[in-house]
Formats: sequence, structure tokens, C-alpha cells
Amino acid sequence: MRGVVMHGPGDVRVEEREDPRIVAPTDAIIRVAAACVCGSDLWPYRGVDKVHDQPMGHEYVGVVEQTGPEVRNVKAGDFVVGSFFASDNTCEICRAGYQSRCVRAEPIGAIGTQAELARIPLADGTLVATPGTPHPDLIPSLLAASDVLGTGWFAAVAAEAGPGKTVAVVGDGAVGLLGVLAARRLGAERIVVFSRHADRRKLATEFGATDVIAERGDDGVAALKDLTGGLGAHSTVEAVGSQESMMQAIRATRPGGHVGYVGVAHDVRIPGEELFFSGVHLHGGPAPVRRFLPELIRLIWDRAIDPGKVFDLELPLDRAAEGYRAMDERRAVKTLLRP
Amino acid sequence: MRGVVMHGPGDVRVEEREDPRIVAPTDAIIRVAAACVCGSDLWPYRGVDKVHDQPMGHEYVGVVEQTGPEVRNVKAGDFVVGSFFASDNTCEICRAGYQSRCVRAEPIGAIGTQAELARIPLADGTLVATPGTPHPDLIPSLLAASDVLGTGWFAAVAAEAGPGKTVAVVGDGAVGLLGVLAARRLGAERIVVFSRHADRRKLATEFGATDVIAERGDDGVAALKDLTGGLGAHSTVEAVGSQESMMQAIRATRPGGHVGYVGVAHDVRIPGEELFFSGVHLHGGPAPVRRFLPELIRLIWDRAIDPGKVFDLELPLDRAAEGYRAMDERRAVKTLLRP
Repeated sequence: MRGVVMHGPGDVRVEEREDPRIVAPTDAIIRVAAACVCGSDLWPYRGVDKVHDQPMGHEYVGVVEQTGPEVRNVKAGDFVVGSFFASDNTCEICRAGYQSRCVRAEPIGAIGTQAELARIPLADGTLVATPGTPHPDLIPSLLAASDVLGTGWFAAVAAEAGPGKTVAVVGDGAVGLLGVLAARRLGAERIVVFSRHADRRKLATEFGATDVIAERGDDGVAALKDLTGGLGAHSTVEAVGSQESMMQAIRATRPGGHVGYVGVAHDVRIPGEELFFSGVHLHGGPAPVRRFLPELIRLIWDRAIDPGKVFDLELPLDRAAEGYRAMDERRAVKTLLRP
Repeated sequence: MRGVVMHGPGDVRVEEREDPRIVAPTDAIIRVAAACVCGSDLWPYRGVDKVHDQPMGHEYVGVVEQTGPEVRNVKAGDFVVGSFFASDNTCEICRAGYQSRCVRAEPIGAIGTQAELARIPLADGTLVATPGTPHPDLIPSLLAASDVLGTGWFAAVAAEAGPGKTVAVVGDGAVGLLGVLAARRLGAERIVVFSRHADRRKLATEFGATDVIAERGDDGVAALKDLTGGLGAHSTVEAVGSQESMMQAIRATRPGGHVGYVGVAHDVRIPGEELFFSGVHLHGGPAPVRRFLPELIRLIWDRAIDPGKVFDLELPLDRAAEGYRAMDERRAVKTLLRP
């Protein structure tokens, strides 16, 4: 089969790779209908994370081709969506809703779904079948549910976005934009996005943002406080993962408010004393997308939400390198790849 | 009047100070029935925090002597308990339960309640009258409600201690011990305290601890994981404020669990990536004691709890220096001072 391999920073190639096989009796093999490039794939692409001959991709939708003998919940022919962590969905941590930290969790990123086929471990716990074969125009949105929507959703839930709340969103990438969508669906009263890119501001507004602030860092915080009677947001989504964005999120939030952070932290050190006196709640991490998948699939199936709009570039798998480049250069918010 | 002044690290004296007067129409003057030395008073005593000729004390119970013309909720003769932050209890932040971050908050520590008299700002929002003049044996417990119980209670609430939960408590000082008591009252199933001091272990057990771990740091975490099927605690109270204790609390908590931290952070830097992958909820800060005071006073009045047991040294105000020394040398958990 063909699949994407990152040989080093900036060096993305589509190559012939060995077809995946059932390894454990709980595995399934899926034929990938669509995959995509994640904002987190840019960390190794830019050389911030180490990378060497790594198969890429952890977001996926597709059709089950084959299942191991212990798989019960999905069968060949099912169209499925899965999370970027395989999970058994039965352990105590999964049952508490933290499937990305399942005691048997396996990162799908180690497998690489930017490919024609992928082996999905713990298929019963990881994969959720759609009600039928989706209309082709639903595929981008279902693919979004696999990570970027599920992650933005978790961030909004972690930030306790809801009725009567003012929600601030730090980061106008795909996760931040879908954090806006999630906050809107969760009933937030006011949604303020920090953005200086016209196309992203436009999409944020379509997804439900009520206000846009162009300033960043402490200037952005000051602008937000002006909008909120000096108090700050009730709920803040942090969807970047840098020191500046994390501190912006904490400072944007009122005492007793909630920060939901999902940007993969890079060289972040949170000063304890400032956090202490901020009085905020801080929760985040790798999103337990599996918790939300049934609900998100239903909303997409019913066309109640259209998260697939974050894909502004669609390419055949063979042109994956072009998709990475476009995101790296911020010409695209998010690239969808069709094997 | 006589009051405690810390002239520099280790230099605590009881001196004649000017009697406090009503400054704002919302002030009250109270005659202090009992005050005490806080664990946080040891930071300047030990030279970790800067200090120079500072009146000391922020915990207090006493009788209202005089009120400003705008005070409505308490009157001369009332026996009152207050928090270590004055708060109006009417602003949006107070109404959300974060009175220690009231938009008009004033630290009582700047006033100094280790004294015969104290001026309490925002008396209507800050002070809660007891149902009558308390029996003398209730005074230590009511005094505890002013900070150390309210803080331990907030930590347990922030850690979401409750039925079915395993709660770990990092720190066996008065706040940690009362975090144990709070976790027990909140219905926790199992309460594990980290302690290596026989007297404190004994008191922790009286307050409801079910298990004691003598190891600290990562060894303590490993011992806790052994007790919890490898998963860690659902809820962890952090009641120290050091880098080691904060990391111990985060590492002791299972993914999706809650850390409630109330130790005043000193030189703490939380590594973002570790926090991200821990998947814990982190909440804390200066406890909004005022939120809990009515409930805590009732529990004490009804003799349902006896938090005053944390005072294992009682001295007349004039011997305050001895009380500081005993706590610094860990000969006392907490010192009560009678003016």
C-alpha cells in the first residue's frame, strides 16, 4: 500500500509500505476513506519534535476490511470513525471518560493513517460505526470528529463552556475554530476568538464567534477584559500549546473560571504562584475523543454541525507533501488527504 | 493595644500598636478572642518571603466592638468568624463562590489579627456571626474555620472528594489534616495521607484517614499506585506549595482525576508537557473561605466536626514568638494565641 512517511523535518514522502496485518485478536484493518494533516504534525515537520522515518497520520475514517477474532462491535463493511488513541473503552479510566489515557492506550500516530490501509488496535473500544454508508459530503465532517472536532469539543467541555458563559478561544487553527463551534453548541452566550487572519475570523464567525480580538498576549488579555467588565472570560479554550498561549489563556480567565487546554504543550512552564493567585481551573491534555464520538457522529449525520468546513485544502494522498507545506506556510487551515 | 510584629526573619515581637479605627463606612472593629499562627506565616519567618516590620496574623474570631455606618449584617456584641480576605460577597466573582478574589478583596494579613483588636474591612461581606456566644471549648474550632479548616475544605472540594473516591493528601500540616477531615465529611471512601510524623498520623487517623504512606515524592507516588490498582487517586489535596509536593500531587492523581492545591506556591514551575499528559484537573489558590463559613460554623456549632484539634499549642498573645518557634521547629502543628 501507499502511505506517508516523514523522513526528517520538512521531508514528507508518499511511499510503498507493507500492508498492515491483524496482529492482536482485537485488531481491525480499515481501508482509509480520508485522512488529514494535524496541526501537531507540524511540530516534527518544523523540527521542534524529533522525527526520523516516521509513518504519519492519526486521524481517519474508513471502511472495515478485516477484523481479529475477538472483535464484536464492528464488522467488515462498516464505515467507522476512530480516535487518535486506541482504547479498550472498558477500563476504569475509559469508563470515567478518559479514553485517551486508557490503561491499554496505543497511539494511532505510531501506526500512521495517512495511508491506504491502517491497523486499528482495540477495535471494539476504538471504532464507532456510522449509521450507514455516509453521503460523500459528510466525510470531511466525520473525519474532523476523529481528532480536531473531538479535541475542540473536549477543550470547550474542559473549559465548562455553557449557557450564560463568555468563552474565549486562544488559537485560530482548526482546533480553536472547532472549539468555537463546540462552545456554540454547548450554549455559550458570547464567544470571543483571538485571531488576526481574515479567513479564519470569517470561519470562526460562521461557527458562532460573537467577537474577534486581533491582539495577542497581554494586549489580547487587556482587550478581552475590556469586553468583560474587567473580569475576564468564564471559560477559555487554549488550542496552541506555547508558553505565550497558555499564559494568555490563564490570564484571560476570571478567578474561578475554567481553562480547557488541548494544544500539545511545548516548552511550557506554568509559574505556580501566578497560577495559584489566578484562581482558575485548569484541565486538558490529549482529548478523550472516544467519549464524544457517538454524539458528534449523530450531530454530523443529522447535519446539525458542519465541522468539515475547516478543511480548506483537499489533495490526493500522493500529494501529501504539498498539504503539509500549505499548512506550514499558513496557506491552509487543514488539509484533507484522499488515498 | 498589643499586637504581633515580625521585624525580620525569625524576629517576632509583641508590641504596643495604635488601636485600629473605623476608616471606611463598611469597616468593623473586633476584639480578637483568639488568633493563630498560619503555616504561611512561616514563609517570612524562615526568610523565604521578604518581611520588614510587618503586623502579623490573618485568622481570627472575636466580638464586634464597633461598626461603620454602612454595616448592616453584624452589630456590636456579635461573635464573628471571618476569612483571611475581606470580600464584599456581592460582586460577580463573590457570587460565583470566589470571595478570596472579590473585585474589592483586601488581605487581612496586611492588617494583622495577632492582636487585641482588628479592623475588618467590608464587614458585611466578610464576617459571619455565630448563632450566639460560643461555649469556650468551641473557640479553637471556630478559629480554625477562619482559614485552616476553610482552606482544607476548599482543597477537598477543588479535588472533588466525594463518595466512592480515593483521596490522597500531600502535606500533614494543619491544612492537610483538615483536608482529611473535609474529605471524610464529603463522603470519600478512602483517604490516604502522606506523613512520617507519628503525632500527625494519629490526628489524620482521628480525622478519617484510612491509610498512611511514609514515603515522599516519587516513592510516595509509587506506594499510592500500589494501593490503587496502579491508577492513582481520584482526588488529591496539595497542602504544601513546593515543587516536590505539587509534582507529587499531580503524579499521584489518575488521568481525569482532580488536584486541589492550596499550598501557597513557592518557586513552583509546572512542566506543561507532563501536566498535559497527566490528564488531571488542577484547581486551587487562596481558598474562598467565606463560601464555606456558614456551613462550617453550623457543623462546629452542632459539634459534628472538631477541627480545633489541630491546635496543639495554646499561648497567651504575649508569648507569640514561642508559638512561631514551636511551629518552625515542627514541635507544634498549629499555635493558638489568646490576646
